[in-house]
Amino acid sequence: MRIDIISVVPELLEGPFSASILQRAQEKGLAEVIVHNLRDYSIQKQKSVDDYAFGGGAGMVLSIEPIDRCIKALKAERNYDEVIYMSPDGDQFSQAMANNLSLKQNLILLAGHYKGVDERVREHLITKEISIGDYVLSGGELAAAVIADAVIRLIPGVLNDETSALSDSFQDHLLAPPVYTRPAEYNGWEVPDLLRSGNLKAIDIWRHEQSIERTKNKRPDLYKKYSN
Amino acid sequence: MRIDIISVVPELLEGPFSASILQRAQEKGLAEVIVHNLRDYSIQKQKSVDDYAFGGGAGMVLSIEPIDRCIKALKAERNYDEVIYMSPDGDQFSQAMANNLSLKQNLILLAGHYKGVDERVREHLITKEISIGDYVLSGGELAAAVIADAVIRLIPGVLNDETSALSDSFQDHLLAPPVYTRPAEYNGWEVPDLLRSGNLKAIDIWRHEQSIERTKNKRPDLYKKYSN
Repeated sequence: MRIDIISVVPELLEGPFSASILQRAQEKGLAEVIVHNLRDYSIQKQKSVDDYAFGGGAGMVLSIEPIDRCIKALKAERNYDEVIYMSPDGDQFSQAMANNLSLKQNLILLAGHYKGVDERVREHLITKEISIGDYVLSGGELAAAVIADAVIRLIPGVLNDETSALSDSFQDHLLAPPVYTRPAEYNGWEVPDLLRSGNLKAIDIWRHEQSIERTKNKRPDLYKKYSN
Repeated sequence: MRIDIISVVPELLEGPFSASILQRAQEKGLAEVIVHNLRDYSIQKQKSVDDYAFGGGAGMVLSIEPIDRCIKALKAERNYDEVIYMSPDGDQFSQAMANNLSLKQNLILLAGHYKGVDERVREHLITKEISIGDYVLSGGELAAAVIADAVIRLIPGVLNDETSALSDSFQDHLLAPPVYTRPAEYNGWEVPDLLRSGNLKAIDIWRHEQSIERTKNKRPDLYKKYSN
């Protein structure tokens, strides 16, 4: 899988892909994340990519021209499954959407910044809009990083032990059960005896019960989906 | 405001705070983000901070000891309003929660990694658990960065024009209206005439109507909150 991220502040994305799981995914050749500086596609002398909003009001707006040029340049090289704009009013990102995107070959993620992009970008150049949640960020960069991370870790071979992703929260509409590691006692706080019993069948049952209990208490909305 | 982030992969957080709005907030002395490497608090020879899960199963679990030592060291220096664990089963992060956190002085954000933290951390060392959405990431680092970004940009003085944050999506349960910038015509696609009319009153009304229309269509759940 290849993910191209277009941003006016590419420095923001220097850390998230250069360590841990996403770094290993790229080293193994399973995923490739390329960050493009929108300013490289500006035809202005000052490499400017934004301008004031028509009609007035606070905040700058990203212009359509450099975005169009960047997307066109990428599309000339390969086919893209989706051109996604990160926006707080897009479709809500979910584990199901991450599963679905993890099957794609090539994705473009466009990160807005300041007051957002010229509406004509959204009307004509984008195939999908995604929101990672009901809050506003200073740009779409972190949202793009979140999506790349959630998607790439699902590609077979990226995680060392594939069952690790299958037992995550949300894969079956249940939250994950509690986990414990050594020491067995810390500060007087003990690990449940059962987990140290070696009775794997009983442990499996306990974990499933804990998942159900936790989902019922913390997320009745998810529990409804599970029990249907 | 001061935000301390505890992580086992601090490299992931190198980009997000070193550019754009968060960098300026720190330069202006309005916010400070300090990333701590959990391994610095390990008492193991190999600086190890994780171990196998009691009861078996895939994935490593972060141990309670280094986390406890790190939190204690921070608390010895100052009082913290909240010690927050980033978890997919925490409370859903929202713009209202961001507003609320932006009024705090000192926050600790603990980023889990691998299969998560020992449950006793959540039971005894944490005051709040937050999820940025219904999806699983390879660690809590990006979630911590999302929260820091959403919160810090709300601190008065961080954005150049304070009305810019007030007109964001969600602040009044409405999505933001469309924005346009030059050129007025691109590829045959035109900016609405009204926005170029100079009739600021009519533009204000149009924007409000667009916000309402967009919220009704895209997010009927939010629209319900707005109209109540």
